Amino acid sequence: MARTGRRKGSPDTREAILDAAREAFAARGFDGASIRTIATGAGVDPALVHHYFGTKEQLFLATVGAPVNPGELIPLILDGDPELLGVRLVRMFLSVWDDPHSGPKLIAIVRSALAHDWSARMLREFVTSQVLRRVIAKVDVPPSEASTRAALVASQMIGVGLARHVLKIEPLASADADTVAAMVGPNVQHYLTGPLPSE
Amino acid sequence: MARTGRRKGSPDTREAILDAAREAFAARGFDGASIRTIATGAGVDPALVHHYFGTKEQLFLATVGAPVNPGELIPLILDGDPELLGVRLVRMFLSVWDDPHSGPKLIAIVRSALAHDWSARMLREFVTSQVLRRVIAKVDVPPSEASTRAALVASQMIGVGLARHVLKIEPLASADADTVAAMVGPNVQHYLTGPLPSE
Repeated sequence: MARTGRRKGSPDTREAILDAAREAFAARGFDGASIRTIATGAGVDPALVHHYFGTKEQLFLATVGAPVNPGELIPLILDGDPELLGVRLVRMFLSVWDDPHSGPKLIAIVRSALAHDWSARMLREFVTSQVLRRVIAKVDVPPSEASTRAALVASQMIGVGLARHVLKIEPLASADADTVAAMVGPNVQHYLTGPLPSE
Repeated sequence: MARTGRRKGSPDTREAILDAAREAFAARGFDGASIRTIATGAGVDPALVHHYFGTKEQLFLATVGAPVNPGELIPLILDGDPELLGVRLVRMFLSVWDDPHSGPKLIAIVRSALAHDWSARMLREFVTSQVLRRVIAKVDVPPSEASTRAALVASQMIGVGLARHVLKIEPLASADADTVAAMVGPNVQHYLTGPLPSE
């Protein structure tokens, strides 16, 4: 199908931009993809991409189908006792998982990641570039350790979401979010600021 | 379709037993389901269930599609320094995830758990009754803490499997298994034997 004759404002244009964005983000990652490339892929002017979706970050969130904007949520937990950052992070993460609107969307995103490689790449980019980068930037650790710490935090966060909301393993499934955060948070904190084994 | 005229040894009989077993295990859990109930559900004699599948445990593993038998693997890591049980557990778990034969089967099981409630229940039963119960039985903690510790261990193990093999977050995705076990193991150990927050 030729991508001509598409009118500004048509659902087709929106979809074409999302398709091109998905392809670009999956292939090049969040940092590597540009609005210009995405616009070219969709056969539209870059200004139209901004018009529809705002910033590159907002376009990325729309592409992933993210139910929340980590750029708004993460700053809310960065202040406070640095030793409790892990607990606050888990607590916030659970509030998204536990929400009847956003929780099922997270499950759908993980399900898609298990089914499609590109979808797994998108989720990885989302977790690393939108969530963990903002958290790791706050802790005082060598830059060379940033990706290791981020990956370890991700492993624990994804796991607690699945254990609580998909496998529904008790008591994690029924415990209130504060209790879970008190149990899991210290381990996340350990990944953020604790010693790493020498490799 | 009436379940009559099925011959002993036919694929139909096997499938009927597996269907009945899936239903029973999902509804009652591993402990609650009995070979007798499953046999009744399949319209066969209990002896035939044993003939095809061996013990209840073996039938359960077949029903889940488990690529390995935790009853054989877990005992291999129980001996040794009790403070390194967490590291050995992660190391063994990774050897199953990293294996080109069993890894994709684990991914398929998790994918199914995300799609079907009964499948999630089966995976939960598998993780708790076949894997974690054997590990928790080895550590010296109050029985009242067993399920909490098991659930926390599960949350970390599931997460590291997904972060490494589905999301492929670096450096977790490419690091060798010993390195990952050295990083994640201490947190699993903490869940096994460390202090729990008072609830």
